Parts: sequence; C-alpha cells; structure tokens
Amino acid sequence: MEERKWRRIESRPAGHFGIFSVRYDRSRSPVSGYEREYTVLEAVDWVNVVAVTPEGRFVLVRQYRHGTGEYTVEIAGGGVDRGESPEAAARRELEEETGYVTEDWDLLGVVEPNPAFQANLCHTYLARNVRPDGKPAPDPGEEIDVLAWDATEVQEAVRRGVIRHALVIAAFFWYDKWSGRA
Amino acid sequence: MEERKWRRIESRPAGHFGIFSVRYDRSRSPVSGYEREYTVLEAVDWVNVVAVTPEGRFVLVRQYRHGTGEYTVEIAGGGVDRGESPEAAARRELEEETGYVTEDWDLLGVVEPNPAFQANLCHTYLARNVRPDGKPAPDPGEEIDVLAWDATEVQEAVRRGVIRHALVIAAFFWYDKWSGRA
Repeated sequence: MEERKWRRIESRPAGHFGIFSVRYDRSRSPVSGYEREYTVLEAVDWVNVVAVTPEGRFVLVRQYRHGTGEYTVEIAGGGVDRGESPEAAARRELEEETGYVTEDWDLLGVVEPNPAFQANLCHTYLARNVRPDGKPAPDPGEEIDVLAWDATEVQEAVRRGVIRHALVIAAFFWYDKWSGRA
Repeated sequence: MEERKWRRIESRPAGHFGIFSVRYDRSRSPVSGYEREYTVLEAVDWVNVVAVTPEGRFVLVRQYRHGTGEYTVEIAGGGVDRGESPEAAARRELEEETGYVTEDWDLLGVVEPNPAFQANLCHTYLARNVRPDGKPAPDPGEEIDVLAWDATEVQEAVRRGVIRHALVIAAFFWYDKWSGRA
C-alpha cells in the first residue's frame, strides 16, 4: 500500500528524564489536513535475551521494578549503549545481569514497544548453551536473583501471571515459533 | 518468596505530557540501603482486542503512528477512561476504531507494558463473532483502515514484521494459548 506519511511541521523537546526524553511533534495529516501536537517518547533501543542452558533451563532474573513497584521475573535485558550493536548489548546485558555467557546467538525478532508514542525498538535474542562462566556486574541498585527454570516452570509462571512483562511475553512468542512449538 | 519492597522516600512530579505523566521516586533498597531517584511513567491502563469474525477473520487496524513515524497494522486498542472498566474500554475502542461489535467477550491476559519504568497494565480481550454493526467514531486525527485478515495472513504479517507492536504480539501469544494452537 503506497501512502503518504504525515508531515512533521515542528518538533520541540519537552524534557529529559534520564532513561528517556520527551518531545512534541506538530504533524499534519496528508489525508484530511488535520493538524495537532503529538507526544513522542525517545529512548535508546532495548534488547532482551531468551537464554537456555544445555539442559533446557531458561535463565531468568528476579528484581524489584520501580515502574510497577513490584518484584518481577523477566529475561535479562536492557538498553543498547551508544555505538554498540544490539547483539553486543544482548551479550553484555546477559553477562552483567546473570553471569551467563555463550557464543551461540540468534536474533529471534524485533518489536516496537509501543509505536503510538515510542520511537524505539526492542531486539530479542536467543542465546543457546549458556553457562555461568561470566562476570556478573549489575548496575548499582540492580539487586538481581538469577533463576534457571525448566520449560514447564516458565509456562506455569506465564499462565499464573508471575511473568507478565509484555516484552518478555513477546520474546517467548518468538521462541515458541522458532522452536517449532507453535 | 517473601521479600521486603524498596522504600519510597520521596516522590515528585516531573511533568504532564498529555497521554502520560512522569514522576521521580527516590527509593531505598531494603537489602543494601542503596538509594537513588527513579523515573516513573504514569499512564491510564490500556486495553487491546483480538477480534474474530464468525468466518475466522481477524479485525485489524492500519493507521499512522506518531511514535515510530510509520503506518502500522495492529489490533484495536486504547486507554481506559476514568471510571470505565477495562472490558467496557475494550468494547468501546473496538467499536470506535472498527465499527465491529459483539456480546461475546473474554479476558485473554494482562501484561505490564514495561515494569522497569511504567506503572500501568494492558488488558487483552478476545471478542468472538464480531460483526460490523456498530458506529465507528475515531478520535480526530485517527484515520483508520479496517482490515479483516485470515489466520494465515496474520501469521505471515507477524513473520514479516508488518505486525510488530509488542502488545499486539503479546495478545496473539495469549490467543494462541487460549485457542490451543500452542
């Protein structure tokens, strides 16, 4: 489908908040001429990692999350540093958060966290044959419990809502497709 | 696992940006005593809807998204209004964005869009036997093409990255589980 994009008339910063910035874009519809200001959240791209041991266990992280104010169970992940490739960021985050490493990496999929107002992407990697040979180096305040659950435990945690981070659910969606389970 | 939460020492607003607000929480770890300010994005809860016709077609919306600056294909969805239940919001958003209605509703699952810095939830509904009998009422500037794709077309769109909104992928994850496909 060929379609003209909205035209950005003006863009102005609304603030910097550490992990993200906010800008306002005034944009005009090519269809109706309708025009208004839209809020856009700018952040670096994110990565996350479905990490599986040779025994088929999934390496997960349990930590306090300041957004929801709860402890969560997730897969390892974080932001892509300036000048870093998404795969390098995935390797780094897995090692920093869990101490697990491997040379067996594949890109599972890429999602938009929320295209309505976020500009960035999340790249999901599959890390196979991971082993706890690395050097965990959590950021200050990152107090992480590393878990190694089998597939049944992961499925049960998703079913019960113990794992419910959307980007983690999306990662398991790709993993199920990739592994031929769905 | 019993675990003490971080203690919020102080909380202050950082700004209002229409569809969300930002606040800073100064919080202290119960484990290490480490203390710092965390950025939290506050928004209303969101809903989205896997809507299926009696013929097994999925009702999708194609629209320009100001976050990524691209046209996307997604399922219908939006924010829960004040005083509205998530299911009522799902019914309203489906009708407003697509004109499709039904009385056949189920909750598929609930996800956290990003617990690291977002406080809100996204509630995903399954709407079966939807029919185009409603009154589309898109918001100003919402210029929406309504699509009705079969399961193969949806799968292909996900595989090719045409559909790549994380909350939509998570919705299809729940749908696959619910429908026994995975």
